[in-house]
Parts: sequence; C-alpha cells; structure tokens
Amino acid sequence: MSEPETWATYLAQHEARHLDELVTFLRIPSVSALPTHRADVETAATWVADRLRSAGVPDVEIIPTGGHPLVYGRWHVADDRPTALIYAHYDVQPPDPLDLWESPPFAPVIRDGRLYARGAADDKAGLVIAITAVEALARAQGGPPINLVFFFEGEEEIGSPNLPPLVRAERERLACDAVVSADGSMYGPDTPSLTVSTKGLAGCQVDLRTADTDLHSGEYGAAVPNAVQAMAQLAASFHTPEGRVAVAGFYDRVRELPAEERAEIAAVPFDEAAFLQGTGATALWGEPGYSPLERRWARPTLDLNGLWGGFQGAGSKTVTPCEAHVKITCRLVPDQEPAEIVALLERHVAEHCPPGAQATVTPLPGAARPFAIRRDNPALLAAASVLRELFAKEPLVTRSGGTLPVAEIFQRELGADMVFFAWSMPDCNAHAPNEWFRLEDFERGRRAYCAYLTALAG
Amino acid sequence: MSEPETWATYLAQHEARHLDELVTFLRIPSVSALPTHRADVETAATWVADRLRSAGVPDVEIIPTGGHPLVYGRWHVADDRPTALIYAHYDVQPPDPLDLWESPPFAPVIRDGRLYARGAADDKAGLVIAITAVEALARAQGGPPINLVFFFEGEEEIGSPNLPPLVRAERERLACDAVVSADGSMYGPDTPSLTVSTKGLAGCQVDLRTADTDLHSGEYGAAVPNAVQAMAQLAASFHTPEGRVAVAGFYDRVRELPAEERAEIAAVPFDEAAFLQGTGATALWGEPGYSPLERRWARPTLDLNGLWGGFQGAGSKTVTPCEAHVKITCRLVPDQEPAEIVALLERHVAEHCPPGAQATVTPLPGAARPFAIRRDNPALLAAASVLRELFAKEPLVTRSGGTLPVAEIFQRELGADMVFFAWSMPDCNAHAPNEWFRLEDFERGRRAYCAYLTALAG
Repeated sequence: MSEPETWATYLAQHEARHLDELVTFLRIPSVSALPTHRADVETAATWVADRLRSAGVPDVEIIPTGGHPLVYGRWHVADDRPTALIYAHYDVQPPDPLDLWESPPFAPVIRDGRLYARGAADDKAGLVIAITAVEALARAQGGPPINLVFFFEGEEEIGSPNLPPLVRAERERLACDAVVSADGSMYGPDTPSLTVSTKGLAGCQVDLRTADTDLHSGEYGAAVPNAVQAMAQLAASFHTPEGRVAVAGFYDRVRELPAEERAEIAAVPFDEAAFLQGTGATALWGEPGYSPLERRWARPTLDLNGLWGGFQGAGSKTVTPCEAHVKITCRLVPDQEPAEIVALLERHVAEHCPPGAQATVTPLPGAARPFAIRRDNPALLAAASVLRELFAKEPLVTRSGGTLPVAEIFQRELGADMVFFAWSMPDCNAHAPNEWFRLEDFERGRRAYCAYLTALAG
Repeated sequence: MSEPETWATYLAQHEARHLDELVTFLRIPSVSALPTHRADVETAATWVADRLRSAGVPDVEIIPTGGHPLVYGRWHVADDRPTALIYAHYDVQPPDPLDLWESPPFAPVIRDGRLYARGAADDKAGLVIAITAVEALARAQGGPPINLVFFFEGEEEIGSPNLPPLVRAERERLACDAVVSADGSMYGPDTPSLTVSTKGLAGCQVDLRTADTDLHSGEYGAAVPNAVQAMAQLAASFHTPEGRVAVAGFYDRVRELPAEERAEIAAVPFDEAAFLQGTGATALWGEPGYSPLERRWARPTLDLNGLWGGFQGAGSKTVTPCEAHVKITCRLVPDQEPAEIVALLERHVAEHCPPGAQATVTPLPGAARPFAIRRDNPALLAAASVLRELFAKEPLVTRSGGTLPVAEIFQRELGADMVFFAWSMPDCNAHAPNEWFRLEDFERGRRAYCAYLTALAG
C-alpha cells in the first residue's frame, strides 16, 4: 500500500455516496432469466456503463450479444504497464419465492450492518467495489496504476450462453495479463481466502427403451425386460458400493493430490457437523481415501441429477414400464476433458446396459473444462500479499466444487488466469431469499481493490 | 347336451333378437371410471335387471353400494339341485384415445363377422350370452336345470372397491356350489381353454430421503448421499442379475410346479416371436429355469412399476437430489400371502437401504391373494367336458398372469371356486380402441352356456 492516504482518504470521504450508488443499482431488477425483465437488464447495463464513465474510464461501450449485452470498458494508461481485465456481472437471480423475503428483493434495506437485496452479494456489490476503487485511484493519482479492461456481463445467471463466442471474437480488445474476478466468495468473514481452482462439467442423459408401450405387468412382467429395472441396474453401476466412480478410465487423467496440497486443504477449518446440519443429511458420503473437503474441492464426481420412468401417480398401476431416463453430470478436475468423459460414459452405458434394453446417450449442455491457476502466477501472489496485509493473517488456499466456465474460457482464449478477488461470503444467501452483503466488506473491499490494482503495477 | 333340439332351436330362432339386444346394451356408455357417466352406469344396471326379468328370472334386485350398484338375480328351482352363481360386469373401460377408433365406441357396428364397440368383449357379450342362455333353457324346459344366482357388478373396471364387503354382507343370498365367470377369455379362437389360476398382488411404495432439499452438486455432491443414487442401488437389489427375485424369503411358500403341470403348460402353443412382436421388446427376460409361459402363469414376480427422483426437465440441472421414490408390485402364486410379502419387502428395504438414506415403506392398495381352482372341482370338469364336445378337441389348461381379486374373494367368502367360462379372445382389443367380439362366439357361447348349465345339474 504505497500511497494509502490519497485513495484511502477519497474512499472514506465518498463512502456514503458509493453505498447509495450501490443501493440505486440494486433497485434495478436485472433478472436475466425472465423475459419480462429484459428492459430492466438493459437499464442495468446502461447504469453500469454510465458509472464506468463517471469513474473516469475513457472508453466505455455496450456491446450487444444474442442475449443481454456486455458492458465493456478500457482505460489504457501506458504501453509498458501490465493490463488487468476485471470481470463481474450485473444480472441477478430471480427473487422467488417472494414470500420468504423479509423485505422486498428490489427495495434495498440496511439492517444490522447488512444490506439486503437481490444481487447484493451476487454480484452487484462486487461490481460497484471494483468501479469505485478505480475511481478513487484515478482521482488520487490522475489515473489507474495499470491498464484496465472491464468485462461486465449480463448473462452469468443463465449460464453465459453468449460469452464464449464473444470472448473469442473480441480477443484483441480483451488482451490482458491477468483476469480479476469481482464475482466469487471468501471462505468466511474475517477469513481471507483465495480460490485456486474450479471444477469442470460434463454430462449426458441416458434414455432406455425396452418395449413399444408400457405393458400389463401380469401379462408381460414375468417375460419381457422392465425399463425401470434395467435403469436401476444401469444407474447403480456408475459407482462402486464404496462411493468411487466405477466408469472405466474416469480417473485416468486425474492429477493425484500432492502431499503439500493435501496439507493445504487440511489446514482449512471444516465443521462436519455444521455442514451436515446445513443440509439435513445424516451422514457424509463419498470417495474413500479422501477427506470431505478434498472430495468437494479436488476430486472428480459423478452425480445422478434425476431419474424417472413408469408410473408416478397416486396409488398403484401395475405396469411394466417401457422407458426410463437418467440425467448424469460429472464435476471434473485437471486434466479431465469433458468430451472424453462423455465418451467414457457412453462406453460405460454400452457395456453395462442390461440385455433387452436399448440405450441412447445424449450429451447435456454446459460442458466446461476444469480451471486451476498456477500457484506462481504473479497476480495470485499479489492478491495473497494484499489480503495478508489487510487481515493481518495468512489467506487460506481454497477451491470451488462448482463450475465457472468463464475462468477456463478466459484462460483458453486470452491466455490469462483468473484471480478471484471477491467479497461475498457463504452466509450471504446468494441465490436464496434475503440475500445480503456486509457493509464492512463494502468498505474493506474497496480499499482492498485499490491496494490490489496498485500491487499489480509490480 | 341332453336335449339339444329344444333350447338349441330357441337360440337359433332368437339369435337376431339376442344380438340386437347386445347392440342396444353396448350403446349405453357405462364407463365406471368417469363421474360424467354415472347416469349411464345406472341406465346399464336397469337394462340388465330388466333383461334378467324378461328372461324369466323371478327375483331381481338392484343393490346399491358405495359406488355403482350390483344387479342381483336369483332363480331357485329346487332345494335338491345345485346352485351356480354367474358372475359378470356391466361396466366398461373408458374409450379414449377416441381418435384411434374406426367407428365410435358407443355406436356398435358389425364388420366382417365382428361386432365393434367398447365393452363388446369385456364384458357385455359375456353377460348377454349368460342371460339369453338361461332364457333359452327356461323357455324350452320351464326353468333352468339348476338354481341360479346372478351377480353382475358395475365396478369391475375400477377394481371392484365395494365388492368385498358386499359379498361378505350378502353371503347367504350368494350361497352357491360353483361360481361361473362370464368374464375372462379363451386362449384363442377355436382353441378352447380353461383358466385354472390367477395371480395375487402385493405392493408397496418406497420413499428415500437423504437431505432437507435438493443440493448444489458442486458444493455437496462429493460429500453427502444422493437420494437417486441410493435409490438406484436399492431398486437394483430386488433382483439377481439373472432375473430371480432377490428378496429373502420371497419364494419360501411358493409351491414348486409338479412335472405334470409343467407338461400341461408346455402343451400350450406359445409363439415367442409373435409375443415379442406384440410388445416391441427385443428379448425375453425372466427367472432362469422356467419357460416364458411358466413364468407368466405360475411363478411369482416383482415388478418395478415406477421410479423417480431429482430433475426431469429439459437440459441440465446440477442438483444432488434429496428424495427418490419407487413403486413395487409383486404377482403372487399359491401359497404366498400378500401381507407377508409386504413384510418381506420392508425387511429387504431395511437391509439394503444405503447408509445415509432414510426409507419409508407404504403398502399399496389392491392387495389380493392368488387363486387356483382344485383340478377335481366338478364344475371345472363339467366345463372341460362341454368344451371338448363343442370344439371336438381337448381344452387347454391355462392360467392368468393377472390378478382377479373377485375369484379369491368368492372362494374365501362363499367357499366356491370360480370356473372361467368366457368367450372373449386375446385379439379382441379389450381395454383398447376398436374393441370387438366375434359373432361366431356369440352364437357358440350361448349354446355352450346352455350345455354347461345343463351339465352342472349332474
């Protein structure tokens, strides 16, 4: 923190205004999933573009996509300075179920040091923190310490369908040395952390057919295959009884966890009882030989997301079902390849499909490669250094069990790794009723961003 | 056939009228399952009662039930004569899908020697055959050769919910030496047969729960149980890979098939290719060590009728489902007991439910004991003799894989075994569009009933 007084003073003097701007932004119901909110999403994009301009960003553009637009910004200060791309999104999840909200989702209120509104944690506070930090740096120093690209999308909550072609097409205008995500979360309040990997995703639907129609079980059940029974056998074949994935080749490309990474994960506090209580589950489950955190963060999984066939109504219907279906997704770790995993699933189905059942395997959308940042990435090391100083403690090294395709897409298309530098917390009710964001983190996050962008100048 | 001329002449002279009466009866859309047809069901009951009276039956009564009424008739001729109860039903299946009918379901038409209408085969022709045969005997001989009780229900197609208490309450008025069912079917045209057993039924629904709500598979899938996966394992545990039921104790009470019964079944022609083609199945399946017909007719089965859990919509939803459900029914053979089988299923679930899943087992309605007639039953032997003479060939001994609770209820409550003496054929589209009945069987069935009731006089 080379010149704390200047930008720090600016931030302190303008904190109330910045918070008020966040409140204004939160009043816009930019729900990307609902067509009725299309105009609101446009309004939010305009708000973001205007706010970038008022922060001093010289090149701001709303770039249309097949869906909701991208808000793009560029502040080039010098050819010999590094360039960081700041990623965030201005769309939000739908607010329902509305009756569970204590105050309306798009009427932000502050209670007990928390700002309640849909999008507060995911991801409008993060977006405003980044912009206001840039404003403070610019006002204090005449401009940001590095070159900046702003990439604020409006489709994150619907899976970023238009992002991959857009990134590819705009590669030159997006060129950067590091990607900084203002979307993501910290491990816990006062528990600084850095996410170093996210999982990939690959999945398929398997449809089984055993006959032309559902059949009378008295006439046929004893003599022809039952699609539901065949599916139960097939669906049960994807795991060993111990909980390991039983698909041949599934683990072939998985990098074994080195001892130092296992130690790193073991150093992260994990309260099993609280974890179970949060879900209502009565027992942990998973691949033997790994801790729950290792499984969630660093081991691949195969999940049966849905299974159905035959009669689901009230009472009894004595049919021998003719078809059954299962949806499967796998969470992938380096160096698993989504297309290869789908091929392994297809082979598994071909080999384990019971006789008399015809199987069709259809890949599911949403395939994504796993993402991991190199531990010697300078932007990651700089983030660790800023967090260490800010919290006066060593940041935890964490990982995400979820999938964030954007990280891998930027890595692949721009050759730049993403550093998650974000201030949402696991208890902020993201995607749930009564979403909120800590005011303390709004204040701290803005200072952290100023320090971090300064640190990236090297 | 002691006095063929008299009743035979009467039948021949009145055949056109009798057929016209059947057509009139078929015009009444007595669909028991649909509340909108309640008045039609009443009309059909009145029609049947009137027709019994015009046949000469002295005591006819419409007995109300909690649902559709029973048409009861009694013709007592002499205390020293045996009594037969003739069973049939006057209600029909719903006709939909209507667009698949070549002519309207309740506008009977004759094409190529077949009478097309909903209910033609199941079971209005059978009911009219029995009444008109009694009329012929009465007109020719002054009364029937034996005492008769008529039991024509209006709820067969909805599972006869009011029949068991009614039979119990009316035990005295239903007392008989034999039950003759005018509902049922022959093995094939010009292939006389007698059904000697029907299967019982017992079932349950199993509900599994692993957590309070569906969970994010990235955050939780690697660490807590998945209800769909647990259900797949559990559902796959009910059978051995070879197709035998794997529930402990399931076969304990099953009477092994004696060599002579296996020979009897082997003597029944069974076209595997045609059977498969009729279903669209590509392979037979079932318990090893038994032929397809043995399995369908004489071995118990466990059928998974429906299975569901998790996400069933289009595309992908990366959830770890918290609940899953399966519906199971078993077809039972002597001496399996429905309640005992449900208890075995409960024990199996308790023993095979994967850790972390809570199982609830709920018995399904429709439990029924298996039924079998003693082979030396005089009414069965008399039926065989009549069929042998009528077709000039030995009738086949067949069984039903289906469940007809009424047979076992009459056996239990009245101490009388049911003889299936019926003229529907497997190709008659019962329960399907374009249901039909052979005119030839209407003529032959009436003669057969006269001969059979005469034979029952001993």
